[in-house]
Amino acid sequence: MKDAEMQIPTYDDMLAAHERIKPYIRRTPIRTSDYLNELTGAQLFFKCENFQEPGAFKVRGASNAVFGLSEEQAKLGVATHSSGNHASCLSYAAMRRGIPCNVVMPRTAPQAKKDTVARYGGRITECDPSTSSREATFAKVQAETGGDFVHPYNDPRVIAGQGTCAKEMIEQTDGLDIVVAPIGGGGMISGTCLTLSTLAPETQVIAAEPEQADDAYRSFKTGHIIADDAPKTIADGLLVPLKDLTWHFVSNHVTEIFTASEQEIIDAMKLTWKHLRIVMEPSCAVPLAVILKNPEIFAGRRVGVVVTGGNVDLDKLPWMQK
Amino acid sequence: MKDAEMQIPTYDDMLAAHERIKPYIRRTPIRTSDYLNELTGAQLFFKCENFQEPGAFKVRGASNAVFGLSEEQAKLGVATHSSGNHASCLSYAAMRRGIPCNVVMPRTAPQAKKDTVARYGGRITECDPSTSSREATFAKVQAETGGDFVHPYNDPRVIAGQGTCAKEMIEQTDGLDIVVAPIGGGGMISGTCLTLSTLAPETQVIAAEPEQADDAYRSFKTGHIIADDAPKTIADGLLVPLKDLTWHFVSNHVTEIFTASEQEIIDAMKLTWKHLRIVMEPSCAVPLAVILKNPEIFAGRRVGVVVTGGNVDLDKLPWMQK
Repeated sequence: MKDAEMQIPTYDDMLAAHERIKPYIRRTPIRTSDYLNELTGAQLFFKCENFQEPGAFKVRGASNAVFGLSEEQAKLGVATHSSGNHASCLSYAAMRRGIPCNVVMPRTAPQAKKDTVARYGGRITECDPSTSSREATFAKVQAETGGDFVHPYNDPRVIAGQGTCAKEMIEQTDGLDIVVAPIGGGGMISGTCLTLSTLAPETQVIAAEPEQADDAYRSFKTGHIIADDAPKTIADGLLVPLKDLTWHFVSNHVTEIFTASEQEIIDAMKLTWKHLRIVMEPSCAVPLAVILKNPEIFAGRRVGVVVTGGNVDLDKLPWMQK
Repeated sequence: MKDAEMQIPTYDDMLAAHERIKPYIRRTPIRTSDYLNELTGAQLFFKCENFQEPGAFKVRGASNAVFGLSEEQAKLGVATHSSGNHASCLSYAAMRRGIPCNVVMPRTAPQAKKDTVARYGGRITECDPSTSSREATFAKVQAETGGDFVHPYNDPRVIAGQGTCAKEMIEQTDGLDIVVAPIGGGGMISGTCLTLSTLAPETQVIAAEPEQADDAYRSFKTGHIIADDAPKTIADGLLVPLKDLTWHFVSNHVTEIFTASEQEIIDAMKLTWKHLRIVMEPSCAVPLAVILKNPEIFAGRRVGVVVTGGNVDLDKLPWMQK
C-alpha cells in the first residue's frame, strides 16, 4: 500500500477486519492463574496470542492485509522486510490465500526464523544487516515482483487487524479496567486503542516497554517520536521505533507507558512459564514485569494482558544464560 | 477410604463426580496445531490439563474425594503419600474445602514439590525414601490424624474424578477415534476407560508408556500385574505400578499399550513446547512419541491426547542436559 501513512483506520475498519480474517485466525483462549492474581493483587486475564498457528498476534494484521487485496493485486502477492514474527505471519497468510510473499531478511537473522518463513512458502531475499542495504534490497524486490508492501505496523490494514484482539478480549471477559500490551513499533497498542476507544472507552490502555529500548516511553514523555538506533534488549520483538500512524494512537489514546529492566523481564517470563504453563517470548513478559513493579496502578483492577507471541529458541532460555 | 480396592466406579459415579467438582476445576481448553497434524498425518486434539490451577489432571480425582467426604470425616481431613502431583492436587482440593491435608513425602523429594504442597496448606511429614519407611510413617500419621486415605490412583473416587476429563474431551470435539494417555499407576487411563466405554464405546483407548518403565506394557501382554522396583525414566510421573482397580480397567478396556524411548520422549516434548507453545511434563510427551512412532495406527484418525501436567523444573529441561 502506498501513501498510506496517515490513513487512520476506523472502528468499522476493525470490525470489517474481524469478519475478513475469522476463518484464518484462532480465537485464542484467555488464561488465568490464581497464583499470579494473589501475587499482583490484580485480576489478570492473559490473551494467548502465542497460540495462533504461526505463534503471534501479527497473523491478524497480516491476514487482514492479504485477504483484503483485490484479485488483481493478489496475483502479484505481498512483500515486506522483517526478521521477526511479521515475516512468518505474512508468509502464513499469503500461503492461506495461495499468493506469493516476498520477504527481505538480514542474512544474520536466526536460521529458525528463516526456516519458518520458508515453511510457509515465503521467498526470502537476504540483505546486509543495515538500513540502507535493507531499503535498497526491498526496493529491488518490490520493483521486480510488484508485491504489495505490508509494513509490520505502520499500515492501517495491519493496525485494524491487530485491533481485533482487543475486541475478543472484551467479549471473553466481563469487561476490563486496563489492557496492558508490550510496545515496540506500536502496532498492537494502536489496534488496542482503536478498538477500545469506541468499544470500551473507560478501559485504560497501558504500554509496557523494556528500559533498554525505551524510545516509545521517551517519545510519550516529550511529545514527539524518538527513534533509537539499534537498542539492545532480550525483548527482541520490541526493538523498532514508532512511526506516524502508531504515534497518532499512542499520543492520543495511551494512558501511560511503564518500563522494566532486563532482569525484571526475565523474572516475569519465568513466572509466567511456571504458573500459566505457556511458552511465550521475552517481549510478552514486559507487561507482567510492569504490573509487578507498579502495584498502585494495577492492584484491585481487572487487567487484560496481551501475550503477543510464542516463538522462542528453546535451547537458549534467558534464565539459563547467566 | 478402606477396603475400597474392588469397589469399581460406575459411569454414574463419574457423572456425579463431574457435578461435584465443577466449581473447583477448570474446563481446560483443547489445543491443536496444523504443523503437528501434518507431521503425524492425524488430527490431534490436546486436552490441556497442565492448565489446571495446581498444574495437573489429578485435581479432578482429588477434588472428587475431598468434596465427597461427609461433614464428620471432613473435619479430620485427608491424607496421602506421594512425592508428585497427587500431593499438590490433594492439598489444593483440601484447601478449597478448608480441611486438613496430611502428606507423607520422602525427604529426598524436590524442594519445589514440597513448597507447592506447603503453599496449598498441606502438612508434610517426611519419611526415608523406602517403601517400608513410607508405609510406617503413613500409618502413624493416619492414626494420629484420622485423615481419610486418598490413594493417588487405586481409589474409585479418584478414578471417577479422572474420568471427567474424557467426558469433556468428547464434548469439546466432534467425537474421537482414539484417546491416548500416558500410563503410570493407571488412574487417568482407568477414568478414560470408565467414561468412554459408556459415552463413546467406539473410541479406542491407547496407553503410552516409557520403555524404561514398561511394567504396564508387560502386564498387559502377560495378563497379570507386573510391578517393577524403582524404574528410571525422565517421565517421572509414570514410575508407579498398576494396582487391582486400575488393572481391572486396563485389562478389560484398553486397546493397546505402546512404548517410547527416552530420546523419543524428549524429542516429542520439545516438539510440543515449540508448536503448541505449552509447558508440559516429560510424562505428557509419551503419547505424541508413540503417535509419531506408530503412524499405521494413528494416521488419518481423530486422536485425543491428554496433556496430564505442567509442573516442570524450568532450570533443568531435558534437552539441555546432554
